[in-house]
Amino acid sequence: MNTWGSNIKVSIFGESHGRGIGIVIDGLPGGIELDTEQIKREMQRRAPGRSSISTSRTEADEVEILSGFFDGKTTGTPLAGIIRNTNTISKHYDKDLIRPGHADYTGFTKYGPAHDYRGGGHFSGRITAPLVFAGAIAKQLLNMHGICIGAHILRIKNISDDSFDPIGVTEQQLREISGKDFPVIDDYKADMMKNRIWEAKTEKDSVGGIVECAVLGMPAGKGSPFFGSVESRLSSMLYSVPAVKAVLFGAGMDFAGMLGSEANDEFYTENGVIKTYTNNNGGINGGISNGMPIIFKTVIKPTPSISKPQRTVDISKNENTEIEIHGRHDPCIVHRGAVVIENAAAIAILDILFDK
Amino acid sequence: MNTWGSNIKVSIFGESHGRGIGIVIDGLPGGIELDTEQIKREMQRRAPGRSSISTSRTEADEVEILSGFFDGKTTGTPLAGIIRNTNTISKHYDKDLIRPGHADYTGFTKYGPAHDYRGGGHFSGRITAPLVFAGAIAKQLLNMHGICIGAHILRIKNISDDSFDPIGVTEQQLREISGKDFPVIDDYKADMMKNRIWEAKTEKDSVGGIVECAVLGMPAGKGSPFFGSVESRLSSMLYSVPAVKAVLFGAGMDFAGMLGSEANDEFYTENGVIKTYTNNNGGINGGISNGMPIIFKTVIKPTPSISKPQRTVDISKNENTEIEIHGRHDPCIVHRGAVVIENAAAIAILDILFDK
Amino acid sequence: MNTWGSNIKVSIFGESHGRGIGIVIDGLPGGIELDTEQIKREMQRRAPGRSSISTSRTEADEVEILSGFFDGKTTGTPLAGIIRNTNTISKHYDKDLIRPGHADYTGFTKYGPAHDYRGGGHFSGRITAPLVFAGAIAKQLLNMHGICIGAHILRIKNISDDSFDPIGVTEQQLREISGKDFPVIDDYKADMMKNRIWEAKTEKDSVGGIVECAVLGMPAGKGSPFFGSVESRLSSMLYSVPAVKAVLFGAGMDFAGMLGSEANDEFYTENGVIKTYTNNNGGINGGISNGMPIIFKTVIKPTPSISKPQRTVDISKNENTEIEIHGRHDPCIVHRGAVVIENAAAIAILDILFDK
Amino acid sequence: MNTWGSNIKVSIFGESHGRGIGIVIDGLPGGIELDTEQIKREMQRRAPGRSSISTSRTEADEVEILSGFFDGKTTGTPLAGIIRNTNTISKHYDKDLIRPGHADYTGFTKYGPAHDYRGGGHFSGRITAPLVFAGAIAKQLLNMHGICIGAHILRIKNISDDSFDPIGVTEQQLREISGKDFPVIDDYKADMMKNRIWEAKTEKDSVGGIVECAVLGMPAGKGSPFFGSVESRLSSMLYSVPAVKAVLFGAGMDFAGMLGSEANDEFYTENGVIKTYTNNNGGINGGISNGMPIIFKTVIKPTPSISKPQRTVDISKNENTEIEIHGRHDPCIVHRGAVVIENAAAIAILDILFDK
Repeated sequence: MNTWGSNIKVSIFGESHGRGIGIVIDGLPGGIELDTEQIKREMQRRAPGRSSISTSRTEADEVEILSGFFDGKTTGTPLAGIIRNTNTISKHYDKDLIRPGHADYTGFTKYGPAHDYRGGGHFSGRITAPLVFAGAIAKQLLNMHGICIGAHILRIKNISDDSFDPIGVTEQQLREISGKDFPVIDDYKADMMKNRIWEAKTEKDSVGGIVECAVLGMPAGKGSPFFGSVESRLSSMLYSVPAVKAVLFGAGMDFAGMLGSEANDEFYTENGVIKTYTNNNGGINGGISNGMPIIFKTVIKPTPSISKPQRTVDISKNENTEIEIHGRHDPCIVHRGAVVIENAAAIAILDILFDK
Repeated sequence: MNTWGSNIKVSIFGESHGRGIGIVIDGLPGGIELDTEQIKREMQRRAPGRSSISTSRTEADEVEILSGFFDGKTTGTPLAGIIRNTNTISKHYDKDLIRPGHADYTGFTKYGPAHDYRGGGHFSGRITAPLVFAGAIAKQLLNMHGICIGAHILRIKNISDDSFDPIGVTEQQLREISGKDFPVIDDYKADMMKNRIWEAKTEKDSVGGIVECAVLGMPAGKGSPFFGSVESRLSSMLYSVPAVKAVLFGAGMDFAGMLGSEANDEFYTENGVIKTYTNNNGGINGGISNGMPIIFKTVIKPTPSISKPQRTVDISKNENTEIEIHGRHDPCIVHRGAVVIENAAAIAILDILFDK
Repeated sequence: MNTWGSNIKVSIFGESHGRGIGIVIDGLPGGIELDTEQIKREMQRRAPGRSSISTSRTEADEVEILSGFFDGKTTGTPLAGIIRNTNTISKHYDKDLIRPGHADYTGFTKYGPAHDYRGGGHFSGRITAPLVFAGAIAKQLLNMHGICIGAHILRIKNISDDSFDPIGVTEQQLREISGKDFPVIDDYKADMMKNRIWEAKTEKDSVGGIVECAVLGMPAGKGSPFFGSVESRLSSMLYSVPAVKAVLFGAGMDFAGMLGSEANDEFYTENGVIKTYTNNNGGINGGISNGMPIIFKTVIKPTPSISKPQRTVDISKNENTEIEIHGRHDPCIVHRGAVVIENAAAIAILDILFDK
Repeated sequence: MNTWGSNIKVSIFGESHGRGIGIVIDGLPGGIELDTEQIKREMQRRAPGRSSISTSRTEADEVEILSGFFDGKTTGTPLAGIIRNTNTISKHYDKDLIRPGHADYTGFTKYGPAHDYRGGGHFSGRITAPLVFAGAIAKQLLNMHGICIGAHILRIKNISDDSFDPIGVTEQQLREISGKDFPVIDDYKADMMKNRIWEAKTEKDSVGGIVECAVLGMPAGKGSPFFGSVESRLSSMLYSVPAVKAVLFGAGMDFAGMLGSEANDEFYTENGVIKTYTNNNGGINGGISNGMPIIFKTVIKPTPSISKPQRTVDISKNENTEIEIHGRHDPCIVHRGAVVIENAAAIAILDILFDK
C-alpha cells in the first residue's frame, strides 16, 4: 500500500522526525539525462521555511540519489532517493493528546501505541517531499514527450484567482506560474491571499483553498475504461496527498446544473487533428485522454495544526480535555500544496502515458 | 487494468451489445450464506426500462453464478457471475460518427478500428450491472459486520434534496431511501426532479446531478496513509463508474472557505468511544477511518446521448458533420447512477474493511 | 490471487463440478484476428476422455467467448471465455474422507466446510482448461512475433525420451511434436510409455513424469533482474498447474556438478547476431532472455487419484480409516499436462514479451 | 517489478558499485520489538570477505534503518534499510567485454548503454544483502508465530551432505546448522566441500551446488490454489536470487519415477492433529500448506566469474574476442547463497503466513 503505479511504480517511506524519508522509483527508461538543478529547484518550491507565511521549520531537503543513476543518466533500474530529516523538534508533540483534523487518533487505532507520533510521523505532509522529487523527474520525462503540467492556487478562503482557460491555456502560461513563489495567475489576488493567510496566522488559525492543474500535450488514447481510467488513477494519486478532500475534473460541480447539450464537448477536425469546441470533460472521455488539456481541481482543507484551544481526548486516560498546538506550522499549505499536487500529478500522468 | 482491489479483487468484462457481461470476485470468505433475492432486488434497482424517464431497453439482468457458490454458500474461491445481453438493437450506432461526450473517439484511438463501438461497447454504462452484482454481495458481508451503506440523489439540475446529517444519519434512514424507486429524502423534491427529467426528455436533452453516499458502522483504523487512503481507494472505484466527474469527501468544496478552527472536527469521548462533535472530514483522518459516518458526494454529468443535433466528426472521412443520436437512452442517469455508486462503494468499503 | 500477470493479466475461476469454469484475459491488443479452429484443436489436445489411458469423463470443453471479441477480432478490452461442466458425476466424492496427495484436507482447512469438495472443486486439474484456452490465444500472438513454443514428455516412470537440443531445436520439430497425440520425440519410447501407463492402470496405480519445454524466437532483453526475472515469472505460472513439483531451467540439476568453465555459455557473434556456443543457462542470463532458446523442465507427480486402498482420516469424525478412490481418473496426467504446461508457459512468455 | 509480495511487500534497489543499496518493507505489524543484534549476525553470515574461499571484497554491510522503526519497535509503516557500498574497485570491469554466464549482455540489451555495468550493477549478487536484512526481520516475526526456517548445503560439485529428514527434522537441528560458518549437517563433508572449493579456486574455476531448506511450524491452510500457491510464491522469490536455476519441492525429481501409491502421503490423526506418514509433497497439497515441514531445494550454478580465459564478444566493436575475469570473486557462492535462500524464503513464508 506504500507503492503506487502500473508502469512507473513509486514506493515511499519515512516519518517526519525519523532519520530520513525517501522514495524508490521503478520503471524509468535507461539512458535519460536528468537535470539535477531542476530537481533542486522543484524541491525548494515545496520546502518549508521560505517565507513569513510558512512554517519556520527549515529543511534543506537535499535528495541523495542512491541508485539507478550513473554518469548523469538513469540506468533503467530502480532509482532511490533519500532525504535526511535535520531540523526536528519533537518536544511539542504530546503522544496522548490527539490533534483534531490530524491522523493521531486513526494512526493510533491502526498501528497501536508504537507508531511514531512525532510531527505526525508517517502521516506528515513532510512525506510529500519524496513525491516532489519523483514528480520533478517525471516532469522532465513528460517534457521530452511534449507534455507540460502546471498548477496554480484557484482560491484561498474567499479570494479567487482566474481559472485556466480549458481550451486556450498555454505552455508559456504554465511555465510562468511555476516560476512564481506564490503560484497565482492574477498577482493582485496573490497579495490578497497572502494577507488573508497572514491574518489567519495572527488569529492562531489557518485557511484552506483550491488548486487547479492543467496538463498540456497529452496524446489522445491514454488511460482505460473503468478501473484504469485517467480520473481513477489521477484521483488515487491526488488523494494520497494529505489534506486533499475533493478532486474534480473539467467542469466539476457545474456538471450537476448543466444540460447534456451544454455539457457535451462537440468535436471538429482541423488540419487532420480532432479537437473539441469546449472542454467541459477536462480532456477525458470514457476514462481516456482525448487530446485536449487535462484540467482538474483539488480542494485542500485548512491546516489542522492551529494554536487556538481545541477540545480533544487524552487517549491514555480516555478523558475529555483541551489542546493548544504550539510548535511550527503553516497557517496555509495551499501554495506548497500546489507544488505537491503538480508533481504528484506528473507521476500519475507519466504512468498513464506509458500505457500501451 | 480490468481488476480492482487489494483484499477483495473484482475483474469485470463485457460489451453493451456482446454476448454477455460479467465479473469475477476473489477474496470472499468461504461459508457465507448469500441472499439471492436481495441480489435480484439490487439488480432490478439498476436495471434499465423500468419507468417512463428511463431508457426503453429492457434487460432482465439476471445473473448466473458460475462458480464460487455451492449449496447456497460462498466457497471461498473466485465467484464468477455473468449476465446475458438480450435486448440489443445495434442499428442505431454508426461506427464513424463519434458521439460528443462519449468514448467513441477515445476508444477508437486506444483500441483501433476493431473495438466494439455498438452501444458504447466496453465503455457502456451497462458494464456497471456486474458492479452492482458484486456490490449486492459486498453489502451483505458489510451488514454482517454491522456496516450499512446508502445513497440518495442530492441534486438534479437546479433541484436539491436535503443533505444527510453527517453526524446523525441513521441506518433506518438509509434503508428507507434504498427502498424507494427514486432515492430522494424529500419526496416532494423527488417529484420536482422527475418533472425536470421529463422536461429534458421532451427537449431531446438530458440532465446530470449529484449523488450523496453515507457509510455507517465502519470501525476506526481502516485504510492507510497515502496511496492506500480511504479517499484514494474509494475515488479510484467511484471514478470507474462512467459519467462520474467529481468526488468529494465530507465538507468537500466548503473546506476551501473554512478556517481551520471551523474545519477541524474536535474529539470527545463518551462511554469509552471516541467521537467527533462535527464531521467535516467525512469520517476519515489521514486516509484512515475514524469511526464516524463516511460521507462523500459524486457529481454525475448529464447523459451524453441526446437527440438534439450536435456537431461532430466522421472519423472515416475525417470530415466535420452533424449527429442526432436516436435509439433508447436515459435523459438522466443519476437515479440509476445512485444505485451503482452505492454498490460500487460497498465493494471498496469491504476491501478497506478487510485491511489488516 | 486468482489473477496472474503484469502485461497480460489472466483471472481464472470455476470448480470441477460447478456450472462452469472460465478465464478473463486482459491486455490483449485490439484488432488481432483469432483462429478459433486452432483454439478448438488446442482444447481438444487437453480434453479428457480421448483414449484408453485417460479418464472416461468426456467433456466437449467448448469455450464460449462472452466479450472482447467482435467480428473475428480482439477488441482490446477484456476477453472472457467460459466452459460449461456437463459430464459430472459427484457421487464418487465423499466429503469426509480426505484423499492423500489431493487438496481435500488443505482446502477444508483454508476455506472451511463450505468449500466445494466435489471432484476437487476449485483445485481440480479441470481448471487448467481455461489456461489452455488463454494459452492457445497467447500462442497465436507469439507466432505473430516469430515466437514458437513446444513441449514433449521427457520421461514417464523409468522411460526417457530424447532431450531437446538446447541449441539446435527447430520450430519444425516443435510443430511436429505438438501435432502428435502423445507428444514424444522418439515414437518407440511413446509406445513404451503408454504401455507403462496401461500397466499402472491395471495395478490401480498411477505414474508421473517430466515435461520439457522449448521457446524459440524470444528476442534478447526481455524480463528483469530479481522479482521480474524470466525464471520467477515462468515458475510462478508453472507451479500454478496442479501436480507440478519441480521447475528447472537449462542444465537444471546438472549445474550442481559442473565447473564454472563448463557451465558458462561463451558468447560469439555471427552476422551481427550475438549467440552462445552452449545453452546451459536455458536462454536466460540475470533473469533476462539472451536470444537463445528458452529451455525448462517441469516434474509432474503421479496422479494422486488411485483405486488402491490408502490410509487416511475421516475429518468429520477425526478418525483414522481407509479410502479407495473410484470414479474416473487418469493413471497418468503427464501427456495432458504437457499440453497445459505448453499453453500456460505461452501466457507467461507473452507477458514477458510485452515488457517495455 | 522491483516489488514483491502480497501481504509483506519488499522493494529493492541498488547497484554493486553505486552509493548504496537497500530495501523498503511494507506490511509489518506495528509494535514488534526487533533484535538488531540478530539482524547484524545474519548480515555477517552473508557478508563477503570472511574466509579464504570467499571474495576479498570486504563490506561491513551495516544497515541503517531510515524509517518504520522507533524506540526499538516497528511502527507499522514502511521500514526502509540502506547499506552503503564502500569497498568498490571498478577498474576490473570492462564495459565492452560481456562476461559469459553474467547479465552483461542481457542488461545491455534491456537497458541500453547507460546501464551501470560496474560489478554487475543492479544484477550483482550484492543486491541480495537487503534481502537478507528483510529476511532477518521476517525470521523474527516467524519465530513469534512458532515458525522456524533453516538451510544447509546439500551438495557442492560431487560431494553430498545428508538430506533433512522430511518428517523428523527439528528446530534444534535447524538452529545448529544456522550457527555454523559453513552450513552442512555432516562436518566431515563440510571439509571435503571446502577443499573442493579451494581446488576450484586454484584452477581459476568455480563450482556450484544445491541448497536444501526446511520450514517448521507452518500451520495448515496457508497459500492458495493456482497463482497464489506456496510453490508459486516461494519459487518466484527464490528465482529472484541470482544464480538459482532450479527449484524443487518435496521429493522433487524423484516424483518422476514414483508410483502414485509411493508418492501419495497417507494421512493419519494423532491427538487431534492430522499428519502424513511420509512427506513427499514437501508440506504442500494443492498449493496450500498441510502442516508438515515445508521442504524444498534450489540448485545454484557455479559462479560465472572465473579467471580462466573465455571466448566472448566485444559489444562496442561486435567482434569475437577473449576475456579473463580478474578482480575479487567467490569460487563458490553456495554457502553464502544458503544464507540468502534461507532469508529470502523467510520473506516469502511470512507473506504466505499473513494470508487470510
